[in-house]
Amino acid sequence: MNEPTRILILGGGFGGVYTALTLEKLLRAEIRRGEVELGLVSRENSIVFQPMLPEVISGSIGVLDVITPIRRLCPNTNLYTRTIESIDLAHRSVQSAVGFGSRAHHLHYDHLVVALGNVTSFAGSPGLAEYALPFKYLGDALALRNRLIHTLEEADIEPDPAVRRALLTFVVAGGGFSGVEAVAELNDFVRSAARSFRRVRPEEIRVVLLHAGGLILPELPASLATFAQSLLMKRGVEIRFNTRLVGATADMALLGDGDRIATRTLVSTVPSGPNPLVAMLPVKKERGRILVDASLEVPEYSGLWAVGDCAAIRDASTGEFCPPTAQHATRQAAAVAHNIVATLRGTPRKVFAFHALGKMGSLGRRSAVAEIFGLKVSGFLAWWLWRTIYLMKLPGLDRKIRVATDWMLDLILPPDIVQLKTERALGVRREYFEAGQVIFREGDRGDWLYIVTEGEVEVLKSVPGQGEQSLRRLGPGECFGEIALVSDVARSATVRALSPSNVLAVDREAFQAMFASLPPLKGFVEQLIASRSA
Amino acid sequence: MNEPTRILILGGGFGGVYTALTLEKLLRAEIRRGEVELGLVSRENSIVFQPMLPEVISGSIGVLDVITPIRRLCPNTNLYTRTIESIDLAHRSVQSAVGFGSRAHHLHYDHLVVALGNVTSFAGSPGLAEYALPFKYLGDALALRNRLIHTLEEADIEPDPAVRRALLTFVVAGGGFSGVEAVAELNDFVRSAARSFRRVRPEEIRVVLLHAGGLILPELPASLATFAQSLLMKRGVEIRFNTRLVGATADMALLGDGDRIATRTLVSTVPSGPNPLVAMLPVKKERGRILVDASLEVPEYSGLWAVGDCAAIRDASTGEFCPPTAQHATRQAAAVAHNIVATLRGTPRKVFAFHALGKMGSLGRRSAVAEIFGLKVSGFLAWWLWRTIYLMKLPGLDRKIRVATDWMLDLILPPDIVQLKTERALGVRREYFEAGQVIFREGDRGDWLYIVTEGEVEVLKSVPGQGEQSLRRLGPGECFGEIALVSDVARSATVRALSPSNVLAVDREAFQAMFASLPPLKGFVEQLIASRSA
Repeated sequence: MNEPTRILILGGGFGGVYTALTLEKLLRAEIRRGEVELGLVSRENSIVFQPMLPEVISGSIGVLDVITPIRRLCPNTNLYTRTIESIDLAHRSVQSAVGFGSRAHHLHYDHLVVALGNVTSFAGSPGLAEYALPFKYLGDALALRNRLIHTLEEADIEPDPAVRRALLTFVVAGGGFSGVEAVAELNDFVRSAARSFRRVRPEEIRVVLLHAGGLILPELPASLATFAQSLLMKRGVEIRFNTRLVGATADMALLGDGDRIATRTLVSTVPSGPNPLVAMLPVKKERGRILVDASLEVPEYSGLWAVGDCAAIRDASTGEFCPPTAQHATRQAAAVAHNIVATLRGTPRKVFAFHALGKMGSLGRRSAVAEIFGLKVSGFLAWWLWRTIYLMKLPGLDRKIRVATDWMLDLILPPDIVQLKTERALGVRREYFEAGQVIFREGDRGDWLYIVTEGEVEVLKSVPGQGEQSLRRLGPGECFGEIALVSDVARSATVRALSPSNVLAVDREAFQAMFASLPPLKGFVEQLIASRSA
Repeated sequence: MNEPTRILILGGGFGGVYTALTLEKLLRAEIRRGEVELGLVSRENSIVFQPMLPEVISGSIGVLDVITPIRRLCPNTNLYTRTIESIDLAHRSVQSAVGFGSRAHHLHYDHLVVALGNVTSFAGSPGLAEYALPFKYLGDALALRNRLIHTLEEADIEPDPAVRRALLTFVVAGGGFSGVEAVAELNDFVRSAARSFRRVRPEEIRVVLLHAGGLILPELPASLATFAQSLLMKRGVEIRFNTRLVGATADMALLGDGDRIATRTLVSTVPSGPNPLVAMLPVKKERGRILVDASLEVPEYSGLWAVGDCAAIRDASTGEFCPPTAQHATRQAAAVAHNIVATLRGTPRKVFAFHALGKMGSLGRRSAVAEIFGLKVSGFLAWWLWRTIYLMKLPGLDRKIRVATDWMLDLILPPDIVQLKTERALGVRREYFEAGQVIFREGDRGDWLYIVTEGEVEVLKSVPGQGEQSLRRLGPGECFGEIALVSDVARSATVRALSPSNVLAVDREAFQAMFASLPPLKGFVEQLIASRSA
């Protein structure tokens, strides 16, 4: 046998990493002899331990301690830290994006395990992609932490009461486990960090949880959910029931009932859609998830397997589809690894069946709710259980030690309020405005050029004695805000959206770099300015 | 007395923060009674403890632990976390950039302390602004850490030996304290992290330190510098003496002697220029630094003071200008605070004089060099002293505890190799290419559109049987690479720089967003594509 058998795993979450881990154990001898080659493609080189992600907000767990390097966990797997571009089932090959340089990368396989999870998707809700903060990766937790500190910094020096109110209002959408854990940590952190800000008073802070149903944590028995609910309320979280988030602008959350909440911090844990790579696979699906047989193989393609949140797996013991939890993903990973090995060796496969052990949700500050082996626990005991169980489950001994130490220090030290900024590229960003919303006002400082991509806006100028006069209306493909960018004066007019509008904002630096060097663009802008000042 | 006396401090480094700290102590009663208002404007809400910054590279100190929130240190000072836009000495007012929203912010003062330090400046060296990694702020240390891990990740899966060699070569420019400390940590980290990468062999790693003189650490006595030098070399750092870094491309460091080093990681700790705000101040300067009198006041403007790296301060005891160190900045801060208070109360001012206590440099892995009160120490003892002294100097008790714990854990745990990514905006970036350098090759994947801003490039196409044929030459304002962006095919030609060229690269997403929505641009690109494919 010259050519090794190539097993390729796609995705660096619990499903993918535990598949690699189990295969390494089962195929130790074969890997050493070069008969089997294990590969794993992941966007990140580490696995995020999501249950502890909310604690990154408050800094009670060190930033790097909720993630474990995949290389450490799976030392005998070739790790490709790349974004996957396409999967070619016919040729049994996977193409990854370029790294340094510009060559594409093809990986061929004999067995492919798809464990790509799902992705945050705000499609269909105006403004959410632009303004709602997702909460899934470590980067999301850091971005949220920076936002919270930034809003407190700004509120501290903001004289306008309306702006101040929006800065001190924090909205979280989604009353499931991740939304509740995020709002609990956010609430604790903002309220304790605010004490370091001289001019922020505790009663000014408003933390709102939006929930589509009548009782939060629908995954749990009602008594536990009620406990969690009243604890959050006691700690100052305002819960809006039967309310959906339907859109957002830069300074507002738009609710399903037509109501609006002025805020500068909107977190959405709700929407997750299928990974586009999974959506493109020509296999049978069940609500966007890959349909597999009882051995976790895709019936149409031998050697194609799927586990975790991207797979529709019927539990043999209950006959129902498995929920998308880490508990299930790790068990499915073990089963798929066993069945691949069985296929290689010609031994019988196993059928997947697993009974969930329980459910837990942290409520911050030494309280939690849990249902374990049918037992309901709440308060401090549940919190202690939560910490102990998750500490045991955290992959890697060094992480266990680091997190245990973090928790110890957290008991005695005040929360951190430093921001973690990394640089950004020259900027082009998308923005969304509601009908009637002001995009900028006459006299404002101008740092952005805007291009209308959808909708209509109106340019207004105040004329002494006559109030505001409409100068012109602009539609898709037209720009505004260009004068302030080239001449460094304040905005010479007010611009307001007439209908819901999507615009593209280009910042001063990107504008100057690009528009200065491209003659047709330069001519276009000069002409525009000449025509408008005429 | 109705109006309080307003003392405003610009800059959140050691000079600025210690001025605020000392003023808070000296004017406690006046601040409480509302007779004095203290303000500090800083880009960051925390002070970076630079001596420990290199340890962030290896993760031996927690990411957040080298920075201390200014609010905690100075609870009675109004902190404005804003970028300063301009200083108006005539009207005694400072304008800060906008935060959320778009209103500018004016701060008026009676006394102004300028402590703006200096900035990293790569002006005049082609490619350095684009490719050299600075090493000054926490974000820089994180960016460097991510780069090191990214290059190891890529080297692990790169088949091309030349690309692999560049990926595994790390160059640091500058043999002073910060360069030496950075190269020591970088070397330790890369060599130990590489063990987790299956296909990276230790002998492939090359770490190079470029130094303009004949002996590193010119600030120290020759015997200590020699000790540091031979220790670094023993640990695998290659030192190139009498060599300056004069430029860079994406995959090369350009040296003063005409030599080039193929690398993907170039760190430059050398160049620092005056802060542009300081440069614009209409006051007398000495090599870009604000000239002050013996009481640290600017002679031309009463109530204007300067301390730290942006001030040219003659030490009364030696008659020489003070070096730009934290030791000096903190002492100057105490002096300026005393003299402002003396001015307010009509008591005599003090003259600034300070004898440096010593100098220390860490060499990583339990070794350091130090000269303290004239005594020379090296090796483990110096390292122990380094840690003890800096731990004592680290502002804030909670930070001391956290760092001490980090150091303890670091003794027993392996180094971290996880990357910390935060999101980035749609991208436009500047690039620099040397004459003869290939920008992209026929057949490469195309993700960027390029616009020439300076220089000339040549488009080449391989014709079967005739080798590469020159299709056209392009100069400033012309674009290339547009076809691959709109049609998602590989590059149809090779582009090479004919002369040293600056280009602007626009990524696929920014390109599509912007060019799709702006009709004149769209027309321009369509026309371009039509003309070239004709």
